[in-house]
Amino acid sequence: MRAVDLIRKKRDGLELSGEEIAFLIRGYSEGTIPDYQMAAWAMAVYYQGMSARETADLTLNMASSGDTIDLSSIHGVKVDKHSTGGVGDKTTIVIGPLVAAAGVPVAKMSGRGLGHTGGTIDKLEAIQGFNVELEKEEFYSQVNEIGLAVVGQSGNMTPADKKLYSLRDVTATVDSIPLIASSVMSKKIAAGADAIVLDVKTGSGAFMKTLDDSIRLAKAMVDIGTQVGRNTVAVISDMDQPLGHAIGNAMEIKEAVATLQGKGPNDLQEVCLILASHMLVLGGKAASEEEAREMLQQKIDSGEALDKLKKMVLAQGGDVTQIDDTSLLPEAELKIEVKSDRDGYIESIQAEEIGIAAMLLGAGRETKDSVIDLAAGVDLHKKIGDPVRVGEVLAVLHLNRQHEKGLEEARSKVLGAYGFSNDRIPKRPLVFALVTPEGIKRF
Amino acid sequence: MRAVDLIRKKRDGLELSGEEIAFLIRGYSEGTIPDYQMAAWAMAVYYQGMSARETADLTLNMASSGDTIDLSSIHGVKVDKHSTGGVGDKTTIVIGPLVAAAGVPVAKMSGRGLGHTGGTIDKLEAIQGFNVELEKEEFYSQVNEIGLAVVGQSGNMTPADKKLYSLRDVTATVDSIPLIASSVMSKKIAAGADAIVLDVKTGSGAFMKTLDDSIRLAKAMVDIGTQVGRNTVAVISDMDQPLGHAIGNAMEIKEAVATLQGKGPNDLQEVCLILASHMLVLGGKAASEEEAREMLQQKIDSGEALDKLKKMVLAQGGDVTQIDDTSLLPEAELKIEVKSDRDGYIESIQAEEIGIAAMLLGAGRETKDSVIDLAAGVDLHKKIGDPVRVGEVLAVLHLNRQHEKGLEEARSKVLGAYGFSNDRIPKRPLVFALVTPEGIKRF
Repeated sequence: MRAVDLIRKKRDGLELSGEEIAFLIRGYSEGTIPDYQMAAWAMAVYYQGMSARETADLTLNMASSGDTIDLSSIHGVKVDKHSTGGVGDKTTIVIGPLVAAAGVPVAKMSGRGLGHTGGTIDKLEAIQGFNVELEKEEFYSQVNEIGLAVVGQSGNMTPADKKLYSLRDVTATVDSIPLIASSVMSKKIAAGADAIVLDVKTGSGAFMKTLDDSIRLAKAMVDIGTQVGRNTVAVISDMDQPLGHAIGNAMEIKEAVATLQGKGPNDLQEVCLILASHMLVLGGKAASEEEAREMLQQKIDSGEALDKLKKMVLAQGGDVTQIDDTSLLPEAELKIEVKSDRDGYIESIQAEEIGIAAMLLGAGRETKDSVIDLAAGVDLHKKIGDPVRVGEVLAVLHLNRQHEKGLEEARSKVLGAYGFSNDRIPKRPLVFALVTPEGIKRF
Repeated sequence: MRAVDLIRKKRDGLELSGEEIAFLIRGYSEGTIPDYQMAAWAMAVYYQGMSARETADLTLNMASSGDTIDLSSIHGVKVDKHSTGGVGDKTTIVIGPLVAAAGVPVAKMSGRGLGHTGGTIDKLEAIQGFNVELEKEEFYSQVNEIGLAVVGQSGNMTPADKKLYSLRDVTATVDSIPLIASSVMSKKIAAGADAIVLDVKTGSGAFMKTLDDSIRLAKAMVDIGTQVGRNTVAVISDMDQPLGHAIGNAMEIKEAVATLQGKGPNDLQEVCLILASHMLVLGGKAASEEEAREMLQQKIDSGEALDKLKKMVLAQGGDVTQIDDTSLLPEAELKIEVKSDRDGYIESIQAEEIGIAAMLLGAGRETKDSVIDLAAGVDLHKKIGDPVRVGEVLAVLHLNRQHEKGLEEARSKVLGAYGFSNDRIPKRPLVFALVTPEGIKRF
């Protein structure tokens, strides 16, 4: 077998066999197939796509290219959740405890932030002492004991995906739905999930800007799940504005805690309940979404959901008093109000601009080596549909003095991110579609 | 400027500016743009093509990437000729002397054989002592003195093209008309041509199998010529069977000499006269093809054309007695007849199979380091349209004993290359179309 022949085959729109895809990924991992051949192949895939079978083969080969997590020692159906990323997304910190409280074991590996704001692991580190690096055995036994653990990706997981992703990043081959789908799913499969709930964001703040593209990506991932025997559903949720009010690491922990207490922002709470419901159904703990939702609401009302978060924080060495009293979490020295310069209704909030503003204040990483300021961030007081008057506060910037140089740019980004209308804005849906192995349901 | 953005631009079907193409080619030559980015770009070009302007910019940037030949010290309009390659193509050895005899200076750089059979330079080396490596000044002054010199490519010409071609070869991006066209034209321009006559082969033995593709390639090259101010015309000629009867280095020299004496095979003579006519017109030595043809016929009849070849052989240190008496050229020890096993008419001859057979007998290079056996080759006694009876000789294999191990495979390749019909075969045209800056003329 020669790589050039496989590139030509894909270039001409033909389907590669499982053996051929294995040859490509193994060769690329081992270095016998060079970057330039994979780059040409990736560009051919960009134009020609891949069949569901090819995409599944690619996924499995990437999943098995490095260390894999074997969750078989954990009792029950392990359901993983993945979000395609967005600004203000702290759903894992809410959903993990919520679902665990309802009896679905959550053994979750999360990432650090690569974009404008921190990732789940960065956010959890806002809790004093919280340890995101557990040994495999500690990880398994914590999940068996308390039903929940969230750790950083350890070891050498999916190296073929990492290598291919870095290559795609510099060869303009990122925007390929089968390549995105297989990248996401390879990580979930390597992390040992039995079933997967995907939260595919759509809108200006998402990687996928249009609903059609988001559905296409969701379908590609659900198809992979079906092909490889992992029950997978995907929720298409709104990212036309940030989720919740808080963008910034400690600020998002506070908001997650509030949500677990039933006092969180409506949009965040609703998205969390929807995703968690699907996880309960896939985990076999509820027969329907409605039943799941009732169970979850009860876990919030009873305090069991918040208690589960505290158990995890305790188990992973974190300071539980910061959960009991979130004012003990890192707090910024300065709080700068951004005020509206007009009357009207909020029509749009460019999530990406808000993300960049948060980064400028220190909440994200400008380069791989930047140190995150856990206290910094943006607190949105107004969201889409809210009425506003001249001089009213749109948002509050949280920052420490060391990041004051980014303040003016952050302020103008936040102000610029807001779009206004003179007319009342119709309420927008939070979830646009559900993609399951059975089909696509648009709402 | 970042390479990834230029790849994306091409990927999305947009036109790159001259500056952007210069950035890519310069960066690739210098090594600041890696192979994997050029591979992705080349695959994007495969799908999206390039405008005439982009193709011309690419050509000029590749032409100027290394040493260039300055023919300005040679008097007259320097007209170069290029053939896209085929089996049995010895036209340069006929046309060079013929055109030079008619007053158009020929300062030609030729290649060695990369495929199944030798290139022009290999063929010329069948003449004892013939030196294909002249210093630039010797080269120029020989052309000024006798009007003709044929040498190998020297120095570091078009390194960007060489680097890109090697990359395309292993990334399934060879078959892109703008990339093929710019590769050919960059070499012609670097070699200093004022005007260019292209011989684009079409048919089973050619790189371009269909007439439409051949015309497209011809048009792309003529467009480049127009864009960069080099008067260029392209003849689309038949390569559905080998050209002439002889395939093999010394054998082809003999056939070229015969053709210069007016005793060559009809097809070879006709193609040479057509290409040479265009060269005379572009060189300003004739007002029309018809006038040029008459002049050329007269140069053959008078012996001036053959005399010009002898002058070149003498000037480049070759043994002229081998031209006067071609039986002194290398001669193979064995001559093995391949006989027909049926009656009928020859319907087809797979040129590529004949080329491989010649290589098996030692006439071509199996690997870059193979040493060519100058005496070896295939002599076709029957060509398309010829009637044949069982037991009649189709072809004769010429080989030395050291290559006897390749004999059986060569014999079966030659026999297999012939296709038969029970019915008389209509005469086929030798030239299918002419592409000039004014348009496309099909015959």
